[in-house]
Amino acid sequence: MSVHGGDWAGFQTEYSMLPLDFSANISPLGLSEGVKEALLSSVEDAEHYPDAQCRALKEALANHHDVPQSTVVCGNGAADLIFRLVLMLRPHRALVAVPTFSEYENALRLSGSATEVFPLREEKGFILTEDILDAVTEQTEMLFLCNPNNPTGRLISQELLLRIVQRCEETGTYLLLDECFLDFVRDGEERSLLRLLPSSPHLVILRAFTKIYAMPGLRLGYAVCGSESLASRLEAFSQPWPVSSLAMKAGLAALKDENYVNQVRALVAQERAFLTDGLTGLGMRVVPGEANFLLFSCMEQALAEKLRSEGILLRTSAGFTGLPACWYRTAVKTRRDNEILLQAIGRILYGS
Amino acid sequence: MSVHGGDWAGFQTEYSMLPLDFSANISPLGLSEGVKEALLSSVEDAEHYPDAQCRALKEALANHHDVPQSTVVCGNGAADLIFRLVLMLRPHRALVAVPTFSEYENALRLSGSATEVFPLREEKGFILTEDILDAVTEQTEMLFLCNPNNPTGRLISQELLLRIVQRCEETGTYLLLDECFLDFVRDGEERSLLRLLPSSPHLVILRAFTKIYAMPGLRLGYAVCGSESLASRLEAFSQPWPVSSLAMKAGLAALKDENYVNQVRALVAQERAFLTDGLTGLGMRVVPGEANFLLFSCMEQALAEKLRSEGILLRTSAGFTGLPACWYRTAVKTRRDNEILLQAIGRILYGS
Repeated sequence: MSVHGGDWAGFQTEYSMLPLDFSANISPLGLSEGVKEALLSSVEDAEHYPDAQCRALKEALANHHDVPQSTVVCGNGAADLIFRLVLMLRPHRALVAVPTFSEYENALRLSGSATEVFPLREEKGFILTEDILDAVTEQTEMLFLCNPNNPTGRLISQELLLRIVQRCEETGTYLLLDECFLDFVRDGEERSLLRLLPSSPHLVILRAFTKIYAMPGLRLGYAVCGSESLASRLEAFSQPWPVSSLAMKAGLAALKDENYVNQVRALVAQERAFLTDGLTGLGMRVVPGEANFLLFSCMEQALAEKLRSEGILLRTSAGFTGLPACWYRTAVKTRRDNEILLQAIGRILYGS
Repeated sequence: MSVHGGDWAGFQTEYSMLPLDFSANISPLGLSEGVKEALLSSVEDAEHYPDAQCRALKEALANHHDVPQSTVVCGNGAADLIFRLVLMLRPHRALVAVPTFSEYENALRLSGSATEVFPLREEKGFILTEDILDAVTEQTEMLFLCNPNNPTGRLISQELLLRIVQRCEETGTYLLLDECFLDFVRDGEERSLLRLLPSSPHLVILRAFTKIYAMPGLRLGYAVCGSESLASRLEAFSQPWPVSSLAMKAGLAALKDENYVNQVRALVAQERAFLTDGLTGLGMRVVPGEANFLLFSCMEQALAEKLRSEGILLRTSAGFTGLPACWYRTAVKTRRDNEILLQAIGRILYGS
């Protein structure tokens, strides 16, 4: 069983109420009006099979990102595409920079691949260093990077990222670059490697609607591939209808909601600073992440447990390879919610 | 690319209108009121991650079928579970009784398995004969059967089915028994092998909400396994959130709609007889199927193409291994729709 945040259902089973959930990293603004309306008006679409080829959504994504439609593959959340890509390529050896999203390692385990980990060092603030270049060899069939990384929130320097892509093309290593949180970053569009795809046949960029549009319950993610042939293999490596009709309609509506994305980004930047200050003031060591969540360390080992008994969910280090137990990840939410979290931590640590 | 019915989107791209779709086998009554209301009232659930363990839905299914909750595995449509089971077991050799639903063979191809086919003979009305017992050997790691079978609508005799299950337990062959259309059969509940699961650790029964509840766009299916250990392996062989929040809510509402299922079953029985008479009257040879679709042969090779140009979709033999080109599959729909189909075929064949 994977360990993840967002297990409101487990909390509900235990406490018969819903928690205040800082353990899942989604937009604090909730569903946009456009997405909500699209869902309400497309309920009857459930009566028909989804378009197996996701034609309309792929066209919209191709326009949105200015990439060829034939390189876009849609999936049942980004996680679906991670599993499909790994089970399709079945790499003998793969390299994962850890701590990171655990589903890369889970997918590799299911495919019988040998996973090497490249440690992101606590003492270096978990940034990716150029040693990674030497760790990628001809034997490395796949490399997994997440930018900004989950759970650290750290960005990879653009200069290093370009050298990694070049290295992977030299060694024939497929690079899965997970940009699912890049929408929350101020200069995220400039930092995206989508523009490199035409010259990088081994690069696959992963994106999701889940986080920025607050629709994880609908399951919608996509990959943009460096080659048409890789995209069409990935498209075929699937059951015929991975994406539901309602997710497609919601995705189409979301792409029109540019204003919503700007609002989320501004709110997250402001509240990330507020939460960083608050946590630092409470004596936590906070990693200077740039996403919609923050990683911090706290010597109170039962912090998450104690918060849980107060109805607040935090993500612990459980399930993150290479992350010591003193680290916690919190989502950046609205001011009111963030204040509740800070007050609760204060009470637990200092009784005030 | 798989070939399937229900490609309204392809038709819409070509003709800028929606077709009258006889190519997808779903309930002619559309979404039930209960499901529609559940969807409308749970749109905001999209904001949260789905319960990765599908607790509430599994509990309801376990009660509904009187099976242990620990043997139920939910998926992103039944097709998701076919792919997961095959990619998990990776059988060296598998046996598929054809013609049948093409995704068994597609999943086997992706897993690199050798697929043997057991032909269902046209001259025997496509019924499954007891020769299948000899075809299952110690080398057969998986067997795929669909009851009633798609596209023929034929049921497997209960006596033979029991002998097959016994044979599979003797040879250690995993039997995937697809009962996705059994809800449309009058004595479907008695014919289900769900009751045999406690004594059949190699049996996996596949069910879906797609067809009987007319919700293929939502993607919701489930497997009930003959052993808890197989179920928990299948549960783990997946991305963490295969089922969307909305599909879970719709499934829970659907299970309460017993009345709807009875209505669909009665309507389908009546209209299947009407359509059989009509097609026979037009000179077609109709296979006496017992599901919500009918297989018939027609010497007009361009029948589907000509119907398509009139806005009507029919399923051809394309993609069905072992089905000659003269065969067509039509859904059983409402009286009005069925009359439109019969009139159109009459016009195409006889100009009247």
